[in-house]
Amino acid sequence: METHIVYENELVTCFLDHAPLNEGHILILPKQHYVDVDDLDEAAAFEIMKTSAMLAKVLKGRFQPDGITVIQNGGTFNELNHYHMHIFPRYESDGFAWVEPADTTNAKGRLSDTREQLMTLVSQQLSV
Amino acid sequence: METHIVYENELVTCFLDHAPLNEGHILILPKQHYVDVDDLDEAAAFEIMKTSAMLAKVLKGRFQPDGITVIQNGGTFNELNHYHMHIFPRYESDGFAWVEPADTTNAKGRLSDTREQLMTLVSQQLSV
Repeated sequence: METHIVYENELVTCFLDHAPLNEGHILILPKQHYVDVDDLDEAAAFEIMKTSAMLAKVLKGRFQPDGITVIQNGGTFNELNHYHMHIFPRYESDGFAWVEPADTTNAKGRLSDTREQLMTLVSQQLSV
Repeated sequence: METHIVYENELVTCFLDHAPLNEGHILILPKQHYVDVDDLDEAAAFEIMKTSAMLAKVLKGRFQPDGITVIQNGGTFNELNHYHMHIFPRYESDGFAWVEPADTTNAKGRLSDTREQLMTLVSQQLSV
């Protein structure tokens, strides 16, 4: 399959998604192998954000979209099994949407409990 | 409206989305005001990625999800008019999905042209 690289440097490669959600849909991949956001080393993580910002400017210049969306799916939702950040232009009328899980009422009712639990885990994580 | 802060430091505040897509849906906001990914200063951009990684570990520990999704919507799709990165656990059965734009065939057919145009703009952007 042909790869349409639009930018690369020593840390990342950026190419067009072969099945674009909108024209200008780009994937940003670190050159080293990482799978999830919490696997990235600091240099790669920073380069991905810096490149996202640069590409957002490029996409705005080329397409004048109503917005830019940046998404990264991890775990079993990462179909390449290699970390990749999607960045693509969005339009009010583009039909792109999120379908919410059917049942969000439980999660909504548990906000205070969830907060307590996550704060504890954050403290543990930060003390590692 | 009550805010459920789970973590903050000098650069970012992280709180639970009041309408969680799944339990553990967190928003990461820079403390300074930025709107889009290309507005962020480098320290804020880096802190957002670092915090995403830390929170991904926390969410994995708490919920053992099938994956973690990280999303940032810009422009008119940014309903807070302040940069915020969503991070939330995902499950195979959660019903969360993207609806693709109805017409992606044009964008798919233009990959080579799109690449040429974007490469030119990337070069211009990098020489600014």
